[in-house]
Amino acid sequence: MSASVGLNRVLEPAGVLPQAAWRLDASPGIADDEVLIRVERLNLDAASFRQLAGKHSGDGDAVRAEVLEIIGTRGKMHNPVTGSGGMLIGTVEGVGPQSPLGLKPGDRVATLVSLTLTPLRITDGLGDWDGRSEQVPAQGTAVLFARSVAAVLPGDLAPELSLAVYDVCGAPALTDRVVRGYGRDDVTVAVLGGAGKSGSLALTAARLAGARTAGIVVSDAERESLRKAGVADAIAVADARDPVEVSRAVTGALGGPATVTVVCVDVPGCEHGAILSTAAGGTVIFFSMATSFPAAALGAEGLAADVTMLIGNGYVPGHADFAVDLLRRVPAVRALFEERVAAH
Amino acid sequence: MSASVGLNRVLEPAGVLPQAAWRLDASPGIADDEVLIRVERLNLDAASFRQLAGKHSGDGDAVRAEVLEIIGTRGKMHNPVTGSGGMLIGTVEGVGPQSPLGLKPGDRVATLVSLTLTPLRITDGLGDWDGRSEQVPAQGTAVLFARSVAAVLPGDLAPELSLAVYDVCGAPALTDRVVRGYGRDDVTVAVLGGAGKSGSLALTAARLAGARTAGIVVSDAERESLRKAGVADAIAVADARDPVEVSRAVTGALGGPATVTVVCVDVPGCEHGAILSTAAGGTVIFFSMATSFPAAALGAEGLAADVTMLIGNGYVPGHADFAVDLLRRVPAVRALFEERVAAH
Repeated sequence: MSASVGLNRVLEPAGVLPQAAWRLDASPGIADDEVLIRVERLNLDAASFRQLAGKHSGDGDAVRAEVLEIIGTRGKMHNPVTGSGGMLIGTVEGVGPQSPLGLKPGDRVATLVSLTLTPLRITDGLGDWDGRSEQVPAQGTAVLFARSVAAVLPGDLAPELSLAVYDVCGAPALTDRVVRGYGRDDVTVAVLGGAGKSGSLALTAARLAGARTAGIVVSDAERESLRKAGVADAIAVADARDPVEVSRAVTGALGGPATVTVVCVDVPGCEHGAILSTAAGGTVIFFSMATSFPAAALGAEGLAADVTMLIGNGYVPGHADFAVDLLRRVPAVRALFEERVAAH
Repeated sequence: MSASVGLNRVLEPAGVLPQAAWRLDASPGIADDEVLIRVERLNLDAASFRQLAGKHSGDGDAVRAEVLEIIGTRGKMHNPVTGSGGMLIGTVEGVGPQSPLGLKPGDRVATLVSLTLTPLRITDGLGDWDGRSEQVPAQGTAVLFARSVAAVLPGDLAPELSLAVYDVCGAPALTDRVVRGYGRDDVTVAVLGGAGKSGSLALTAARLAGARTAGIVVSDAERESLRKAGVADAIAVADARDPVEVSRAVTGALGGPATVTVVCVDVPGCEHGAILSTAAGGTVIFFSMATSFPAAALGAEGLAADVTMLIGNGYVPGHADFAVDLLRRVPAVRALFEERVAAH
């Protein structure tokens, strides 16, 4: 276990996991199960960049200096205030003989684990970055552990499009697994926040897994956007924070409560609506980071709801390729993502 | 759906669920799917009683007056500061013809849904209560909805013992379901906090479902207590908040990571240790209310851990009877609970 999660890279304090560490060893000499990446670009987490830009009142040079200071001190881009990191794009330079990741030198990859646990060394002083954007051109090296996740960027999609998909690729993979796990042909799936990135991919995966699907959205504009994507058999407008309203919307759209309800709405207070929308013996998958653990646990108990409640795990083996493939199979969903990337 | 969860009892604001309501209609005339309970005793939630006692510096009369005021105003014992309630014991007085709960007049029951959503009317001014204990002798009526949960108190166990078991009865029932769901005879189960109430029952259920079990405890005293209960094949002492330490303890105790890891430790920071202790394809069941949803979701992603993570639902059909039956089947566990009740 020890080496595979990067314990060998932890300098301080000793014995904790890389994410919890204050300082990592980012030296480019790799262990037998590690991979060395030549860095091309960092994508800073939005919360982290906002904090840095705010602190320095938008002074790009000061932001750049602090990012360099953080990486130099900690051996990783782990914002000590926000606790967040981001991800990076680069090219595989070296692969240890025991690495299980299936990468080879020359592969252009995106890392799907956070920068908060990725050993990182910068060699160009970030001279090509003006400090005014989350997109950071960078030269240097990063290290992947045996238990890391990186995806080879597909040649037929723009990198920005792939990154937008990777950001939410756990949702469609887990939805697919849960729907198929029922082993029945009458599974129904309701997705709260069905017009968003994770929501539209979850709907797509559910449809392709054989489920009848309903997208619950917050506005008529979202209803129209989702209608064009064509992956929901029914669409209803409801406030996901209102348990009675949302459960009526789901029941109306599907003719009864859903076998599987997927929560992709990033606002607090959607737990009870999701539980109430789900049939006995059904499953709720919570992908929103705004989910409250006690609200879900106590809500199901108070409603005497015999539902399985899953914490949406962002990692499912093969999730990145699976999600990218959904875009290839459903052009209208690809168009939805291209619109979003262009608008950003 | 509407009537079954008690929407007909909500006075203010209209359209929300009973738990979210400010005020319920607690009148004793029941609908066709409701049950009327003659109240005998309220068990106030510990956090609620502590807040009230602290506010009034232990003045029992003032505490009693405020509890009466809350119930009179809100139609339920829902402490507006702590947001918590408690449960009650009483006797079934009336059963609507459409009630699905299977109760009959004269049954002595405990309600297993929170007082924060139970319509309650007090008729004796709580005159038999001195305001100095969470145990409140009371006369009055309460109402159960179609989707409520109440357990008939067993004749062969002291009521205090049954209540102690009911308080955590979701844990053994869900553990049993998950272990049996694997359909294999080589399932291993690690319980973090194995010596506590929910932990010892989860271990008991896992053992009886055919799993090999390990209890992880925090001290030598807990180790000895759990050893006497005899429901863990192995016991190890570790700090559940230290991912490396706890995963080594589990791996050492079971000869490898656990198929199922059950978290029953009520302190923050146990998510990563539980994830790291669990085999690929395994399941983590979080029963601790101190669980952080983002820590679990991001932790599994950062560790590239292909594990199913369940929010411990306090409701599983038949959970109360299942848990009480575990005490009958394993006298050493019953003795453990009797010690705890006596010490309280």
